Amino acid sequence: MSVVWFNGEFIAGKLALDPADRGLTLGDGLFETILVVKGKPVWLSDHLERMGDAADELGLGFDAVGIRVGVAAVLEQSSAPQEVLRITLTRGVVPGRALGGIGPSPSLLITLATFDPQAVPKTITLATSRIRRNETAPSSRLKTLSYIDAIAAAREISGRADDALMLNTAGHVASTTIGNLFLLKGKQLLTPAATQGILPGIARAKLLQGAGALGLEAQEAMLTLNDIHAADAVFRTNSLRLVTQVTMLDGKVLGQGSIEFIRDRLVSLLEE
Amino acid sequence: MSVVWFNGEFIAGKLALDPADRGLTLGDGLFETILVVKGKPVWLSDHLERMGDAADELGLGFDAVGIRVGVAAVLEQSSAPQEVLRITLTRGVVPGRALGGIGPSPSLLITLATFDPQAVPKTITLATSRIRRNETAPSSRLKTLSYIDAIAAAREISGRADDALMLNTAGHVASTTIGNLFLLKGKQLLTPAATQGILPGIARAKLLQGAGALGLEAQEAMLTLNDIHAADAVFRTNSLRLVTQVTMLDGKVLGQGSIEFIRDRLVSLLEE
Repeated sequence: MSVVWFNGEFIAGKLALDPADRGLTLGDGLFETILVVKGKPVWLSDHLERMGDAADELGLGFDAVGIRVGVAAVLEQSSAPQEVLRITLTRGVVPGRALGGIGPSPSLLITLATFDPQAVPKTITLATSRIRRNETAPSSRLKTLSYIDAIAAAREISGRADDALMLNTAGHVASTTIGNLFLLKGKQLLTPAATQGILPGIARAKLLQGAGALGLEAQEAMLTLNDIHAADAVFRTNSLRLVTQVTMLDGKVLGQGSIEFIRDRLVSLLEE
Repeated sequence: MSVVWFNGEFIAGKLALDPADRGLTLGDGLFETILVVKGKPVWLSDHLERMGDAADELGLGFDAVGIRVGVAAVLEQSSAPQEVLRITLTRGVVPGRALGGIGPSPSLLITLATFDPQAVPKTITLATSRIRRNETAPSSRLKTLSYIDAIAAAREISGRADDALMLNTAGHVASTTIGNLFLLKGKQLLTPAATQGILPGIARAKLLQGAGALGLEAQEAMLTLNDIHAADAVFRTNSLRLVTQVTMLDGKVLGQGSIEFIRDRLVSLLEE
């Protein structure tokens, strides 16, 4: 971890964390991972808006100005062509034992680490996890620290595929463990709707907005495994890894239509 | 927090935690909370067995001997009639960005805090949460650090009731945010089965084993909200709070049959 900033100060080495901080004890917090290109954060306002909305929903203190001050301080230490900025916000310490309790002050951890885009594979394979995403749950919809189900899904398919496809509890396609899923079919660009147990990604939102300029009709939909197998091309979006084509699902080859123009479009959007 | 032990050492004040520890960054770990009476941990072996099984499933390092050594050291500092021992095990630091990756060494945090049994209410009310428990997910079945859904459910019903009743995604009764649910109906003692999206509690297991001696037929079952309303009595079990009668659900009064003999039985079991 090249740069670490915690509750207003740069840290060398370990954090001095309260042992009762609910981020550690109960996964009670939020995070965002943001691509940094030549010292500039990509879609920072979108990430902060998503975090602020989630913090409101969960009753976490969210100090937008304080976070921007910390982010600016950390980004001054930028030292590599591409980096990952991670903002972690926890509920901090809550007096008493009540799960629903509120603490006096959240903890804010901001880190900056080198990111090597060459290490991101150009294509990936997927296998379907037995673990479903829960469309009624904050852990599916919000970028919370409670990530164990995605971790277990990634472990489950490890060795068989590169990432896990997760369905929701109704059996519809939701997302992978670390990104949103898109299908290209003719001029249609389809992705599971926000109600389907997905984390609505920032790259996903940018593509939905930008599809028209590519001559595509973007649409949120309820999708099945059959829809994936019938698509011309399938790809994953992620704020760091951007657009990654999916070549196989559960050992079956998927449509190999070109998605280069979509990747190029997203790259041009992030350069704006 | 009266006593704090972290990775082999007693700590005064803050933990020195690696900022990349996955317990903090991704809720990637497990915990157990154990009642301590006069310096003696209640059902410690059961708690450690549950944690060990969960660690195996999640691929977390689990050093049973090391944990017992830490627990013994912490319990030597016991200073109150009743206390809560909490064991927190995280995956530690994992090199690279892979969700399914494995780290060289887990982090182990053991704390001991005063517990006041007088502060535990004798009865509670419940309200049904809109957030469902996901019976396919480790976050529902295992005592992981990824607790955000239960936290959000507790916040949702706050002000209307003392604890949230959580159904599973099929609409069957699962549990509350912090305990298992039991129904008493005639000689039948019913509780949602382990497949229903519950964390199988230690107090629950003790009652299931000990019910025969009370002349009750204990049974795991698939239960509905109607079953709760039709029961003679309803109660919650929890390793710290033991047996707590539920008097109302969603504003409706529940059966008020006496459960004193069940509470007495559990107390006698923990004294053994």
